Amino acid sequence: MVPTNHTVKSFDDDMKFLAHKIAEMGGLAERMVENSISALVKSDIQLAQKVIADDLILDEAEALLDEKVVLIIAQRQPMAADLREVFSTIRIATDLERIGDLAKNIAKRVVAISERSNSVNLVRGIEHLGDLALAQLKEVLDAFGSRSVTRINMVRDRDDEIDAMYTSLFRELLTYMMEDPRNITTCTHLLFCAKNVERIGDHATNIAESVYYIVTGERLSTFRPKEDKTHRIVVDEPNA
Amino acid sequence: MVPTNHTVKSFDDDMKFLAHKIAEMGGLAERMVENSISALVKSDIQLAQKVIADDLILDEAEALLDEKVVLIIAQRQPMAADLREVFSTIRIATDLERIGDLAKNIAKRVVAISERSNSVNLVRGIEHLGDLALAQLKEVLDAFGSRSVTRINMVRDRDDEIDAMYTSLFRELLTYMMEDPRNITTCTHLLFCAKNVERIGDHATNIAESVYYIVTGERLSTFRPKEDKTHRIVVDEPNA
Repeated sequence: MVPTNHTVKSFDDDMKFLAHKIAEMGGLAERMVENSISALVKSDIQLAQKVIADDLILDEAEALLDEKVVLIIAQRQPMAADLREVFSTIRIATDLERIGDLAKNIAKRVVAISERSNSVNLVRGIEHLGDLALAQLKEVLDAFGSRSVTRINMVRDRDDEIDAMYTSLFRELLTYMMEDPRNITTCTHLLFCAKNVERIGDHATNIAESVYYIVTGERLSTFRPKEDKTHRIVVDEPNA
Repeated sequence: MVPTNHTVKSFDDDMKFLAHKIAEMGGLAERMVENSISALVKSDIQLAQKVIADDLILDEAEALLDEKVVLIIAQRQPMAADLREVFSTIRIATDLERIGDLAKNIAKRVVAISERSNSVNLVRGIEHLGDLALAQLKEVLDAFGSRSVTRINMVRDRDDEIDAMYTSLFRELLTYMMEDPRNITTCTHLLFCAKNVERIGDHATNIAESVYYIVTGERLSTFRPKEDKTHRIVVDEPNA
């Protein structure tokens, strides 16, 4: 793309700078999700603490990006179309920051869960769910980096898969609790971990929407993350 | 305040328009929270469905506000200080939209919970938690409407209270589950409802920060919502 004048060139440079910052934030958010699940699976409290510390860095990066955006808009006074692109970029940063928060929340539960010896098999489902959410996150960050939306529909399919797996995991965890009250504390924390992973998937879907908009200039209005369906779950109780 | 020139006057009018829209969104979010808790307490499925329907209206309002903000910035090209105020307004709209999502999620659980006859006493804790979160939400919306931050520290105190009550409710619900596996399904849904109310309180705290910034031009950087402390909870099991 050949810039038509100095102002356009400068705005373009600003947008590249923002894209670079988003890529950095995305890489960090990805590692945080990966490490939080890994800490959960291995009961690795040190790794969990790293995730908690990393969240401060991610929060700081988002605050700096917000400040930079204000300066860019004030200096360049972009037109409405460019403004919408800037706004989409802020939106991606917000989603990444939330993903970091969710990873941190998983990490914080590692301590409570690691005190239980019976949780090894129970965390496998979360691990699998986490793999799907991570693959989705990588996909949308790649799409953002390459400005290519050809594979973005895969994100939607994977979000369906995540929702289905989350629903079945939710049911399984409830059943475990009913079978043996000794599982209740662990399973409750795992339920919240699973919910966090499911929400990470939703934020990845939000990012897919923003990337689609940045690349094509069009809204994917039907491309909303599906609802968590576990609110309907009622599991038959052994003594009911 | 006497406007110094036409541009300032117009920007002022735009900000008043945004404030009016935020007040409308705030009123709707407040009603949604109120109704979702009320639907939960009374097992009122019709009221729960109204909350679910209202969420579409709130989402639409946020999307329109975002669009309006893009046009305001493009037309008025405000300076950095004014831009920060506009950004704070968008942030409030995002928090209100999230509060609506959380109320909707509570409403969706009403069906699963209402199928249980033994849940009447269990929802009382959520009702009380909801009262606190609602009082907090009203306080920050009043602060935004009156541009007065004199009572904004109360929001912080109340957030401490909400966190303490949520932590004790979480523990109580775990204990109920352990006492009788027939409570597990209901208590799990109530745990998520409680978590949603606690997050509504966090969003109210976010709004308090934004209002403080709009009114004073200064950041309340130490004014972050406190963390959910339930991730550490381990409840002694009857058979452990």
